Amino acid sequence: MGVAWDTLYAKRLRWMTTSVIREILKVAQSPDVISMAGGWPDAALFPVEEIRAVCDDVLREMPRESLQYGLTDGLPALREALADYMTSQGIPARAEHIVIMSGSQQALDLAGRIFLDEGDAVLVERPTFLGALQSFNAYGARYVTVPLDDEGARPEAIAAAIERHRPKLMYLIPTFQNPTGATMSLDRRRRVVEIAAHYGVPILEDDPYGQLRFAGEPLPTLAAIDRAQGGENIIYLSTFSKTLAPGLRLAWAVCSAEVAQQFVMAKQGADLHSNALAQTIALEFLRRGLLGPQVQRIRETYRARRDAMCEAIAEFFPPEVRYTQPEGGLFLWVTLPEGMDAVSLLHEAAKEKVAFVPGAPFFADGGGENTLRLSFACMPPEVIVEGIRRLAGVIRRAMA
Amino acid sequence: MGVAWDTLYAKRLRWMTTSVIREILKVAQSPDVISMAGGWPDAALFPVEEIRAVCDDVLREMPRESLQYGLTDGLPALREALADYMTSQGIPARAEHIVIMSGSQQALDLAGRIFLDEGDAVLVERPTFLGALQSFNAYGARYVTVPLDDEGARPEAIAAAIERHRPKLMYLIPTFQNPTGATMSLDRRRRVVEIAAHYGVPILEDDPYGQLRFAGEPLPTLAAIDRAQGGENIIYLSTFSKTLAPGLRLAWAVCSAEVAQQFVMAKQGADLHSNALAQTIALEFLRRGLLGPQVQRIRETYRARRDAMCEAIAEFFPPEVRYTQPEGGLFLWVTLPEGMDAVSLLHEAAKEKVAFVPGAPFFADGGGENTLRLSFACMPPEVIVEGIRRLAGVIRRAMA
Repeated sequence: MGVAWDTLYAKRLRWMTTSVIREILKVAQSPDVISMAGGWPDAALFPVEEIRAVCDDVLREMPRESLQYGLTDGLPALREALADYMTSQGIPARAEHIVIMSGSQQALDLAGRIFLDEGDAVLVERPTFLGALQSFNAYGARYVTVPLDDEGARPEAIAAAIERHRPKLMYLIPTFQNPTGATMSLDRRRRVVEIAAHYGVPILEDDPYGQLRFAGEPLPTLAAIDRAQGGENIIYLSTFSKTLAPGLRLAWAVCSAEVAQQFVMAKQGADLHSNALAQTIALEFLRRGLLGPQVQRIRETYRARRDAMCEAIAEFFPPEVRYTQPEGGLFLWVTLPEGMDAVSLLHEAAKEKVAFVPGAPFFADGGGENTLRLSFACMPPEVIVEGIRRLAGVIRRAMA
Repeated sequence: MGVAWDTLYAKRLRWMTTSVIREILKVAQSPDVISMAGGWPDAALFPVEEIRAVCDDVLREMPRESLQYGLTDGLPALREALADYMTSQGIPARAEHIVIMSGSQQALDLAGRIFLDEGDAVLVERPTFLGALQSFNAYGARYVTVPLDDEGARPEAIAAAIERHRPKLMYLIPTFQNPTGATMSLDRRRRVVEIAAHYGVPILEDDPYGQLRFAGEPLPTLAAIDRAQGGENIIYLSTFSKTLAPGLRLAWAVCSAEVAQQFVMAKQGADLHSNALAQTIALEFLRRGLLGPQVQRIRETYRARRDAMCEAIAEFFPPEVRYTQPEGGLFLWVTLPEGMDAVSLLHEAAKEKVAFVPGAPFFADGGGENTLRLSFACMPPEVIVEGIRRLAGVIRRAMA
């Protein structure tokens, strides 16, 4: 006898999958491969020395806050500091509007837990962040997709999709979107916020990259526009993963005090509270004004890398290949001519020691076989140029 | 218009509650209250200086492993170190059997996610750990309870409950149980492992306190007994929360490689991976052999505190009040005469500046109104004696 495990699994496991991309990344980890496949920030840009100094201080000065069990909604002083920071970013907030999360991935999971019954629809961009689909899948979500162009999702398309499918929630990444790098225009932002209010469909605004703007004019977040009109229709998510370090697993939600309470209830059963040491480190980073200079430094580095990638693409890629020119973030998006297949291309690319992420997994409802995502985050410009040169050769041969 | 949030929540929110105990703890936080209500280890026993030194070293020597995104199943070197540690504790394991979790609470959540469809039954002890109920409630669990005595749950009662209710899973805390402090005898352990194999019902063995034995003979874990017979019917959970520091939010599961893969899939959507810095700190603690001396130190302290509490109870409590004398862990369990109500008693106790946790919330199916949990973890012996003296007065008055 014994346990027949495969007879015991819950039904939801059929909806869940491991990340295709993580499997692809394993292939791309060989040291001689120029990988533009990663979704990670560059570890060489982490403020290691500052974190070491701050960490030493918080363990000396507030060992209890850094090491003991804490409150589910987060360290009170950090929630207050983040409320001030959000207010300075145009999203007026008090501590009661802030919930500390164990990374944005947890915020997506808990949003699914709070709002999604099996079969509920979530409106998502096409393509969208694969990790969000993984989180929502566990709750049996189905998806309504709205295509993206260079100015983000079209408000008319969003309104039509809501009329037709009545989604429970919209999940949008308006700024330097993952995977496309696209940013929603100001006019569309205003109209999308109106649509949320008009139809009573809340927006989960995921903004992991907003601080990483290296070109163009800053735009208000959807949450800022909504709050300026007295609305509370947006759950805004941001994170320390792209500015401090992702290994800290620290993000936060800004939402109404009522929704914050639901997050707290959901989080109690999920992991009780987020890592306490990471919270005191982040708090001290904010208190000492270290975040601003750090963000400035990484912005400049990523700008140079994006420039190198865009210039190399313009030089080497065939003119039939389209690509985005993001004003921030870590990614750009490539559209190959119709009929080409990025997965086949990846196999050829691997032979030439260059890697990327095929775009199809980012499409909640299929398609996108001729698209791919390139990250410019983790390599110096000269390596980026060499990677694009190799990839251009692979594309040209595939088109021949 | 705007979002009518309360029309949007998922059905599962009706099954979920915030911890009653956390609300009670808020009351008990006044500095002049002698609180035996907490479930926390004593922050004064955390190895702060060792953590500071280790933290400084890992940030210098392995900044990438400490700060970058990591693998969902955990830092490979930590999984290997824990596999060795588990093997030394009688549970033969390789890295593929270890999944690093963001605290045991997450392991309980993910176990619910993997195994529980709405309406599935979980067999639990009566009383049991409230946090486990919170995790399972999110998946619509119902409960089958088996009463505890001083030797843990009775195997015959477990077998009968399985025959009758066919639970998906057993959730057991065989060693220094929370809330009772009870430990399952060796004979019962063997028979419960047999029952799991016979009926094909797996056991989730939660063992947060097993390392904190300060009296009596060590007993093999259920997982050790099962593995010695070639079984893979147990998912074993342990944690750094009671030995290093709970703020690190670091625990681990030991299970078959196949079940480990399901945990990894579930964890990807839940929080991607556990805090990386906490993982490198824990790894270095194990590598340097610092865990053993730390555990020895806290064991001795907790033994002295338990002794103080048991002796004071024997001296001050009315003889009608029963209590457990645990051989480890943080808690003992008090049973008042039938008809008494611990919640009313708590209100009287608050007036006398002493606090405890009423036992009823630990009963998945109601009852236990005349029970309460006392923690001896966080106070020196003389404060414990004073707390018990005050509580004895409150009990005597309530009985009068």
